[in-house]
Amino acid sequence: MTERVREILGWYSSDTPGTRSNIARMLNHGRLGGTGRMVILPVDQGFEHGPARSFAPNPPAYDPRYHFDLALAAGCSAYAAPLGFLEAGAADYAGEIPLILKLNNSDSLIGGADPSPAITASVDDALRLGCAAIGFTIYPGSLARNEMYGQIRALSEEAKRKGLVVVVWSYPRGSGVSKEGETAIDVVAYAAQIAAQLGAHFIKVKPPTAHIEQAAAKKVYEKEHVPVGTLTERVRHVVQSAFNGRRIVIFSGGEAKETSAIFDEVRAIRDGGGFGSIIGRNSFQRPRDEAIKFLHDVMDLYAGKTK
Amino acid sequence: MTERVREILGWYSSDTPGTRSNIARMLNHGRLGGTGRMVILPVDQGFEHGPARSFAPNPPAYDPRYHFDLALAAGCSAYAAPLGFLEAGAADYAGEIPLILKLNNSDSLIGGADPSPAITASVDDALRLGCAAIGFTIYPGSLARNEMYGQIRALSEEAKRKGLVVVVWSYPRGSGVSKEGETAIDVVAYAAQIAAQLGAHFIKVKPPTAHIEQAAAKKVYEKEHVPVGTLTERVRHVVQSAFNGRRIVIFSGGEAKETSAIFDEVRAIRDGGGFGSIIGRNSFQRPRDEAIKFLHDVMDLYAGKTK
Amino acid sequence: MTERVREILGWYSSDTPGTRSNIARMLNHGRLGGTGRMVILPVDQGFEHGPARSFAPNPPAYDPRYHFDLALAAGCSAYAAPLGFLEAGAADYAGEIPLILKLNNSDSLIGGADPSPAITASVDDALRLGCAAIGFTIYPGSLARNEMYGQIRALSEEAKRKGLVVVVWSYPRGSGVSKEGETAIDVVAYAAQIAAQLGAHFIKVKPPTAHIEQAAAKKVYEKEHVPVGTLTERVRHVVQSAFNGRRIVIFSGGEAKETSAIFDEVRAIRDGGGFGSIIGRNSFQRPRDEAIKFLHDVMDLYAGKTK
Amino acid sequence: MTERVREILGWYSSDTPGTRSNIARMLNHGRLGGTGRMVILPVDQGFEHGPARSFAPNPPAYDPRYHFDLALAAGCSAYAAPLGFLEAGAADYAGEIPLILKLNNSDSLIGGADPSPAITASVDDALRLGCAAIGFTIYPGSLARNEMYGQIRALSEEAKRKGLVVVVWSYPRGSGVSKEGETAIDVVAYAAQIAAQLGAHFIKVKPPTAHIEQAAAKKVYEKEHVPVGTLTERVRHVVQSAFNGRRIVIFSGGEAKETSAIFDEVRAIRDGGGFGSIIGRNSFQRPRDEAIKFLHDVMDLYAGKTK
Amino acid sequence: MTERVREILGWYSSDTPGTRSNIARMLNHGRLGGTGRMVILPVDQGFEHGPARSFAPNPPAYDPRYHFDLALAAGCSAYAAPLGFLEAGAADYAGEIPLILKLNNSDSLIGGADPSPAITASVDDALRLGCAAIGFTIYPGSLARNEMYGQIRALSEEAKRKGLVVVVWSYPRGSGVSKEGETAIDVVAYAAQIAAQLGAHFIKVKPPTAHIEQAAAKKVYEKEHVPVGTLTERVRHVVQSAFNGRRIVIFSGGEAKETSAIFDEVRAIRDGGGFGSIIGRNSFQRPRDEAIKFLHDVMDLYAGKTK
Repeated sequence: MTERVREILGWYSSDTPGTRSNIARMLNHGRLGGTGRMVILPVDQGFEHGPARSFAPNPPAYDPRYHFDLALAAGCSAYAAPLGFLEAGAADYAGEIPLILKLNNSDSLIGGADPSPAITASVDDALRLGCAAIGFTIYPGSLARNEMYGQIRALSEEAKRKGLVVVVWSYPRGSGVSKEGETAIDVVAYAAQIAAQLGAHFIKVKPPTAHIEQAAAKKVYEKEHVPVGTLTERVRHVVQSAFNGRRIVIFSGGEAKETSAIFDEVRAIRDGGGFGSIIGRNSFQRPRDEAIKFLHDVMDLYAGKTK
Repeated sequence: MTERVREILGWYSSDTPGTRSNIARMLNHGRLGGTGRMVILPVDQGFEHGPARSFAPNPPAYDPRYHFDLALAAGCSAYAAPLGFLEAGAADYAGEIPLILKLNNSDSLIGGADPSPAITASVDDALRLGCAAIGFTIYPGSLARNEMYGQIRALSEEAKRKGLVVVVWSYPRGSGVSKEGETAIDVVAYAAQIAAQLGAHFIKVKPPTAHIEQAAAKKVYEKEHVPVGTLTERVRHVVQSAFNGRRIVIFSGGEAKETSAIFDEVRAIRDGGGFGSIIGRNSFQRPRDEAIKFLHDVMDLYAGKTK
Repeated sequence: MTERVREILGWYSSDTPGTRSNIARMLNHGRLGGTGRMVILPVDQGFEHGPARSFAPNPPAYDPRYHFDLALAAGCSAYAAPLGFLEAGAADYAGEIPLILKLNNSDSLIGGADPSPAITASVDDALRLGCAAIGFTIYPGSLARNEMYGQIRALSEEAKRKGLVVVVWSYPRGSGVSKEGETAIDVVAYAAQIAAQLGAHFIKVKPPTAHIEQAAAKKVYEKEHVPVGTLTERVRHVVQSAFNGRRIVIFSGGEAKETSAIFDEVRAIRDGGGFGSIIGRNSFQRPRDEAIKFLHDVMDLYAGKTK
Repeated sequence: MTERVREILGWYSSDTPGTRSNIARMLNHGRLGGTGRMVILPVDQGFEHGPARSFAPNPPAYDPRYHFDLALAAGCSAYAAPLGFLEAGAADYAGEIPLILKLNNSDSLIGGADPSPAITASVDDALRLGCAAIGFTIYPGSLARNEMYGQIRALSEEAKRKGLVVVVWSYPRGSGVSKEGETAIDVVAYAAQIAAQLGAHFIKVKPPTAHIEQAAAKKVYEKEHVPVGTLTERVRHVVQSAFNGRRIVIFSGGEAKETSAIFDEVRAIRDGGGFGSIIGRNSFQRPRDEAIKFLHDVMDLYAGKTK
Repeated sequence: MTERVREILGWYSSDTPGTRSNIARMLNHGRLGGTGRMVILPVDQGFEHGPARSFAPNPPAYDPRYHFDLALAAGCSAYAAPLGFLEAGAADYAGEIPLILKLNNSDSLIGGADPSPAITASVDDALRLGCAAIGFTIYPGSLARNEMYGQIRALSEEAKRKGLVVVVWSYPRGSGVSKEGETAIDVVAYAAQIAAQLGAHFIKVKPPTAHIEQAAAKKVYEKEHVPVGTLTERVRHVVQSAFNGRRIVIFSGGEAKETSAIFDEVRAIRDGGGFGSIIGRNSFQRPRDEAIKFLHDVMDLYAGKTK
């Protein structure tokens, strides 16, 4: 148990030893084990975007075991997926990697400005499958946000009582925010704050842009000279917005993009005090060997082995 | 226990022995027992379309025992029906054929673009009636989809704990998809994925057309050259979309049609790696002897006895 | 136990000893302990307005421990916050200051004339975290008001059974009231009455203006010569409207403003028989030392140590 | 919050903030507040021994309010009693002193070698009455011990979840121990260990004698030269036996006796690292003023103000 | 994940992925991780035999943290203890070593031929404390045996549903067996079989002697020439009796004894196909450095590093 992990566990002093054990399991697993940084493999795109959009670029990824194997081979901190994907591999990979069961999901067969995911698994499913954590997506800015906040409140209370960790994906979207606003620095910082106030242990947000969405916020950013010019500064501000760095905030990779662009992003997250990345499409849509090399490179950046 | 059935059971390693036993019961029953292929008789049309539309073409089919007898005589893998039909025969045919209790159903007395079925039976009903599985229909694309996903989540958790198999009918329909889109290859593949991610053991979809409904999907199908020109290719893609073939996917016969057209469809399903057919109207609306002959012919195609 | 606190406890004679103990704990804590007056530190602005708008003016306030420390150092009667902020400090500050867990919250990423907060924590969370009270906001005038009244009814019944205090923030807002009407004397008095009738032990309202919103009320205020010309008179009327002074009514400070203006307001609240202030932004957005000095000054006004 | 109290709270790091808050409340209350020492007034003798035996020596003590008042006036850390006594005063003394609700009690109208107390109140009663803790007596050595251990297991789990403290009176008695053995050093140390292993936060035992009851223990005490010659040494051994001093152990005064004898006992408890005394008959059977003087003297000894 | 661990997990294919994960956690932890052998540190002697008999030979062991530290430093596979000992360290050592919560315990203050332990903790306690397993002692041969079998049945069902491992201590004792019979080979083999039939995942028994207790058994052992002359043979027979080696059987060290005698025992267990040792008094009653050296030596024997 490194000093850094022990320090992080100290931020969760209101939680049970069970929850703290599962936080430790994730922080101690894989190539970044013990550093206080994490790289998580999330694969919910099959449900969220459809199978071909998710897996056709790298067809072995249609197989649920592929992702368990990829996460293990790359030394990820944890693997997150919906019920079906975890059920299809949890027994065969029992005890090999911390699992995060996504408890809600949206498909994209029906549109609408205001996302409203379905509950697709339970806390008891997470125990049955040997998971370390539950995952849940909230969409601040959606008209349906309050329903989601109420759902995670109840699921989170149950998960904490049963010794699990609560990971919240906080993605501003819906009629309350513009398309550009979804990644605006004020909105992303706000989304991190909301997840933290709802009691999330780990928070996942998107890397923010320098855009400021809300007029009332804009005034404050300008008046107080909050530095948000570079991604590093913005990451620092988001981490600050999640209880001054006392909650683990990790950043999503977003759409598949060029490797060098991702490395730049990772450097900025690292230098801004972000705790890591959750990288889905950018890893599982590459050929396996390339993905492992890529994830190792990302981890080496976080570990400070490379600059 | 054949090697093939043993292999299939291996895909369900997270499930209890009870659920695995019931999967095995269905895979080992009837003329296709042991082949890994299935032909299921489903009779929920009385509820879904009304009695005359369903049974007037072959009046003995008004009698619930007719369907038990037909399924047995034809050597089907299982018989699926709503509560009433099963209650009317389950005692007399106890232990003779695996039963699937449909837990939700829609009647067609009131329309609406977005289907939203009623829960019409329970998991405990399924135990009481000696069923091997529960059946449940979801309508991805309906505004009411999330309610259905939430219902099957809870029913499925209970059914699995109690050793039953979960069969999900996944039929895209509603304001999220066009009429043509209901059977579009991208949409059907997506529907199969959703059912699999929700934890279904068996998935029933419609044979897909070559139409691609969603613009975002179309780009990927073209870029990645996903072959969807023939039904065989499309079946292969759907099966791939259900965990790379590690979930049992069966195809519905749909509306009554010419026998030769069905045989062509069955050949394509078989050659594309589909696990079988679920054939309702095309069997029970024919005279009994003709239906048995027809079903035997379908099974022989699946068994590779005929080409 | 002072005579005044004993007198106040006498107003809550239908409540359990547990609830009365927690009322006493708050009335006896801090610099105003025993006076029957209270100054509470509330910090839900991170959720309600976003992190930068709340904490950028005084960045140490991003840290959840800052507020526990500030409330303690300033000698506040209690500290109120949403789940996340309390979980992040409740163990480390166990037993040092009475806590109020805000059970509902609204974010401001999506607008709408009629506020409708989400439930974000439970009564059992309050017990687990060692809180003395639950807090809940109602928005009389909102189309969603009845939903909120129903929620607080249930939460309040549970909280009282478990020995907790019920603190209701009663903020008229929504399509039922004009912007000016939100702080109109008739509306604020009405809001206090509603909270009291819903069974609140402590009621938080905004300092009212002399504006009278409702025509039917206006007639009576004029006919009966209800004095509402000065803030002192209006506070007296609001306190009277909350069961003739037999419920604790405290007033919010509202937006950050000049110190002298706040002191004038406090004098008026004090002289009108108000029980104290709940001061968020005006305290935690100042530098720590200044905030402590400011809060001490406010308390000295309430304690009658200064005029 | 003194350093010593903070250190003690650190021993209970698996507990909720609620439980830690109530531990702190008791450690911070009264004349010994902040010292890490406690003097508790327990009055369950009315139930255990009958009213005249308990209260006739000082008739005002028949009145339940007498004991609240005595505990307050003397500056005790907490007051412990059965349901009825607490119900008779909890509202009038709400918030004035931490309360411990004794959840089980035995009357002495029927004898028997093996005590087996009745459950006389619930954890929810404790919340309703505003208590900081539940109290429970176990009788190791009784044939009915396992029933008691099972009861405190369940009550303790509930109390901890609801933020209360668990105080266990551990009194060896029954056919498993001789009369002399009830206070034998090996038996009392064992009783403290049992209570600690059952999850007690505070443990109450009797001052042990130098007698060693069990042959198997006697060998070890002799072989390992465990010093048990003086009461101070024996207290040190008992405290060591309760998790090496990491559980709060307090000692009962036992039967009414001479004041100087009690002071000697208190000195030994203090010097042996005991956390304090729970003094019933020796306080409430004296006239009020004398009792207060006596309790103050005891506290001064614990506080190190006198020798 | 080594081949051996994978093979062992295969024996538990009826269990949930959660339970299999926790079996894997224990098999993969510590110095013997991956070998399929285990050395577990159990410390329930404080409750079972009393504190001085347990800890006086090595006084630092009075401190609950000592055992967490010892188990970690020695590289044990898991640490087993009653509720109090685990609560006193589970938060501080969160995630550092697999924990087994002993759910029942007997004290030795009262004798009797037929042991009957008390339930002292719950499955939910195990989740709350982050344990990998529950532990439970049965006493075949006791008049109270059926009560214990019924208790473990219920606890085991719950533990398995929640993803925990079930460890059963099976100690023949009571009026059904003679003192010599408690470790008779037929009785120990029978005790292992009973635990296995009750659904235990791990079984703990005592090293058997060559004595044969039951006349009916004796006939068969003789007739079938079951070899039980050496400890290695007897261990082989006990392992065979626990489902032909398809359940993990570990052997207790028993009373403190000479090191060389223990090494001989370990060699016999190893050569007979036993899965390891659970060593309490022989480790924690030695000075820490000596204990670590001793445990390392034991592990090296199991790992085949030494002979």
